[in-house]
Amino acid sequence: MAGLGKKVLIVYAHQEPRSFNGSLKDVAVAELGRQGCSITVSDLYAMDFEPRATRNDITGTLSNPETFSYGVEVYEAYKKAALSSDIVQEQKKVQEADLVIFQFPLYWFSVPAILKGWMDRVLCQGFAFDLPGFYDDGFLKGKSAILSLTTGGTAEMYSKTGVSGDVRYFLWPLQHGALHFCGFKVLAPQISFAPEFASEEERRGMVASWAERLKTIWKEEPIDCRPPWYFGQ
Amino acid sequence: MAGLGKKVLIVYAHQEPRSFNGSLKDVAVAELGRQGCSITVSDLYAMDFEPRATRNDITGTLSNPETFSYGVEVYEAYKKAALSSDIVQEQKKVQEADLVIFQFPLYWFSVPAILKGWMDRVLCQGFAFDLPGFYDDGFLKGKSAILSLTTGGTAEMYSKTGVSGDVRYFLWPLQHGALHFCGFKVLAPQISFAPEFASEEERRGMVASWAERLKTIWKEEPIDCRPPWYFGQ
Repeated sequence: MAGLGKKVLIVYAHQEPRSFNGSLKDVAVAELGRQGCSITVSDLYAMDFEPRATRNDITGTLSNPETFSYGVEVYEAYKKAALSSDIVQEQKKVQEADLVIFQFPLYWFSVPAILKGWMDRVLCQGFAFDLPGFYDDGFLKGKSAILSLTTGGTAEMYSKTGVSGDVRYFLWPLQHGALHFCGFKVLAPQISFAPEFASEEERRGMVASWAERLKTIWKEEPIDCRPPWYFGQ
Repeated sequence: MAGLGKKVLIVYAHQEPRSFNGSLKDVAVAELGRQGCSITVSDLYAMDFEPRATRNDITGTLSNPETFSYGVEVYEAYKKAALSSDIVQEQKKVQEADLVIFQFPLYWFSVPAILKGWMDRVLCQGFAFDLPGFYDDGFLKGKSAILSLTTGGTAEMYSKTGVSGDVRYFLWPLQHGALHFCGFKVLAPQISFAPEFASEEERRGMVASWAERLKTIWKEEPIDCRPPWYFGQ
């Protein structure tokens, strides 16, 4: 029971339960459950999660109703416990988690908008970081995070000499700019290349290798989340 | 009348008209109008633009209702003219534009979710690209695009040796992965660093320099949107 007592949050962004992303999510739930982990899934499309950062995220009055500043108002609302309930619920899940897994298909070299909205709204100042209180001092330090994503393009396209450049290039904003900024230790990404162009057997192999990796996930060391990992020296 | 007959689309993502981003949008409308350009603004928050990529983006029946694949269904719907009207309207604006300006505050080293949703939904296969038909052969070739963004962090933080790394690192997914992929010629980004920490005079200076640059925008050469521009060598 490698994960006994560990808590895992899976933030899952796919519209279709029978999709390849759905299979990767399901196999993670199964494997981590087998280890004795307690698992929570935020199924963003099923929740119809709100991606837009607006005044509705603050309950009650604003500190400056004349000129609305989202960052300022959300920071104040966090301190007064006046954030909207959907944000508060997600923050509780993050707070309790030892490991957060993001499961998504790559859209435009990044997360789908619904997951970007989760990051924009849930990881707010006061909760996930402060100024100072970011990167290695981010408030979510002690937790680990991992991106598990599928691509449309092949591994060859995402190579240093491929048309889409090294796969690590597009990981920088997500892993460093968002996760590391909040203090997460970032584990190596799990990238399933081009499942749509793969055979059924290759797809099963990608799902199996994710399950296999999760068996020893609690022993993994984080990557060194600084420019050399992404861009070389 | 440097811009006479030119068409500009400004995709604008800020909640507050009196914000610094609002001022940058307003000065662009004023300067480009003075040049004789025809200008359209997509004010995403005011439009309550939908960021989520869902089944609702397809009117009528699906080609495979058993297992929903967003990419497949949207591609089919584009070809059958069965995309939802909000997507169609934005595609018309893009189709008519010579230049698209994206005006936004940087959220987590990227665009706010509402703007990410515009990219995810509007720049669909069939309209903006096909396979083949991407990067230099993307369907929006002949058009220019420019990111005009504001940051929370200072220029020093966004330097090669700064905590947030070179500013160009986070531009890669947006400029190369999205805009170049669709065939856009990418003009150099307009980055207004840390307006919240700037004096009123410095803020006025940043707005003025954007207006000044726009006076000769039609003569600008695009950047060479490949890895060396972003990562060196």
